[in-house]
Amino acid sequence: MTTLSSVQYMLVYNTFSFTIAAMFASFIFFIVGRSQVGEKYRPALLVSGLVVAIACYHYFRIFNSWESAFNLINGEYVPSGKPFNDAYRYVDWLLTVPLLLVELIAVLALPKKDREGLFGKLAIAAFLMIALGYPGELSSDTATRAVWGTLSSIPFAYILYVLWSKLGASLSSQPAYVQVLMKNIRLLLLFTWGFYPITYMLPMFGIQAQSSLVGVQIGYAIADVLAKAFYGIMIYWIAYAKSEADGSLPAKH
Amino acid sequence: MTTLSSVQYMLVYNTFSFTIAAMFASFIFFIVGRSQVGEKYRPALLVSGLVVAIACYHYFRIFNSWESAFNLINGEYVPSGKPFNDAYRYVDWLLTVPLLLVELIAVLALPKKDREGLFGKLAIAAFLMIALGYPGELSSDTATRAVWGTLSSIPFAYILYVLWSKLGASLSSQPAYVQVLMKNIRLLLLFTWGFYPITYMLPMFGIQAQSSLVGVQIGYAIADVLAKAFYGIMIYWIAYAKSEADGSLPAKH
Repeated sequence: MTTLSSVQYMLVYNTFSFTIAAMFASFIFFIVGRSQVGEKYRPALLVSGLVVAIACYHYFRIFNSWESAFNLINGEYVPSGKPFNDAYRYVDWLLTVPLLLVELIAVLALPKKDREGLFGKLAIAAFLMIALGYPGELSSDTATRAVWGTLSSIPFAYILYVLWSKLGASLSSQPAYVQVLMKNIRLLLLFTWGFYPITYMLPMFGIQAQSSLVGVQIGYAIADVLAKAFYGIMIYWIAYAKSEADGSLPAKH
Repeated sequence: MTTLSSVQYMLVYNTFSFTIAAMFASFIFFIVGRSQVGEKYRPALLVSGLVVAIACYHYFRIFNSWESAFNLINGEYVPSGKPFNDAYRYVDWLLTVPLLLVELIAVLALPKKDREGLFGKLAIAAFLMIALGYPGELSSDTATRAVWGTLSSIPFAYILYVLWSKLGASLSSQPAYVQVLMKNIRLLLLFTWGFYPITYMLPMFGIQAQSSLVGVQIGYAIADVLAKAFYGIMIYWIAYAKSEADGSLPAKH
C-alpha cells in the first residue's frame, strides 16, 4: 500500500459506492421483475438476484476495508497499517462465477436431456478456475504466479469450449432474436471475464501492484458491474423475449 | 487464545465472511424459490430459509467476535483479552438442528398417520443432543467431557435410528428419483453432523484447542455451509422432483 492523493483515494471510494448502489438496485429489479416474465424463466432471474446480492455484500466489506486501510494526514491518504483485504474478491467470485453460468443455462430452459450435467460441469469448472488462481494471486514470485495462472486457465478454456460448441449447437432451437441476444451475452462474458486474468498478469509484466492500485480497483469494479448487473439485465431481456415467443408473458392479455 | 500470523487470522476471517454470504444468499433463494415448487412442499423451503437466516445472524456475531478478540501488532494478530465467543455456535445449533430435521420430514409430505409424532420426537432428540453436549464443551476435564459427550450421543443415535429404520420404510412410497435424493441427503446429514463430535473429542486426545484453533473454526464453518445451505438446496431438489412427479410444478403449463 502506498500513500494516495485525495483525488486518487476518493476516486476508488466513490467507485465502490457506485458499485454498491448498482448491485442493490439490480437486486430489486431481478427479484421484483421475476413476475414480469414467464414462470419457466423465473429461476434464472432469481439466480441473477443472488449474484448481485452477494456482490453488494462484498462491496460493502471492500468499501469498509478501503476506508480503514488509510488515514487522512495533511490532505493525503497514508496507509494505516490495516491491510486492504483483496480476498473478498476471490470469496465473491467463488460463489458468484458458478452462479453466472447457472443463470445462462437456466434462462435457455433447455429440454432435460440437453441440460443434463451441464449445470454441474460448468459450475465445477468455474469453481476450479477461481480456486486455482488464488495461490498465484498471493505470491509475488513471477514463476509461481505463472504456474497457477496457467492451471486456472484450463477450466476457463473448458467453459469457453462448452459455451461455444455444446451450447452453440442447442441455440438453433431458440427463436432468431434470442439467438442474437445469446451471442451478445457470450461475448459480454468473454470480454468481462477476460479482464480479470489481464489484471492478474500485470505484476508479471513488471507493473507494480502499488502503482496501479487505483486503476486495478476501478477496473475490477467496472468489470463486476458489467459481468453481474448488466449481464443480469441481458438475462432479463432473453427471458422476456422467450416468454413473448412462447406466449407465457404475464403482461399479455 | 494464541497469537496468529496474518495468513492464519485472515483465513478464518475470510471463511466467516464467505459463510455469511453463503447463508444470506441461500436465504433469498429458499424464500423466493418457494413459488417455484408445489404448494405442498413450500413449508419445507420456508424452514430451510429460517435455518440459514439464523445461521447468517450467528456468523455475523462470530465474525465480530473474531475481529474483537485480536489486535494487529507489528503484522501479527495478538489476543486482545476479549474472549472469542464460541457459545454462539451452541445457541445456533439449539435453534437450527431441530429445524433441519423438520425440513427433512416436511419435504416428504407423508400422509398424516406416518408423520404422527415424528416432528416432535426428532426435534426433542435434536434439542437434547445439543444441550447435553454443552456442559462437556465448557469443561477442560477429560472425564466430564466424556460423560456429557456420551449422554449427547444417545439422542444422536436415536435420530439416526429413526432416519434409517422408520423413515426408511416410508421411503418406498416415494418416486424412484426422490428415493435416491433422500438417501443422499441422509448421508450428507450423517457426515456433516458426524464432524461436530469429532471436533468435540479433539481435546480428549491431547490435541490442544489453541493449536488447532484455525483448523477447527474453518472446519465448523464448512460443515455449517454443507449442513445448512447445501442441505437446503438438496431439500429444494427433492421438493422440485416431487412437484414434477405429482404435477404440482407451477412452471408446467
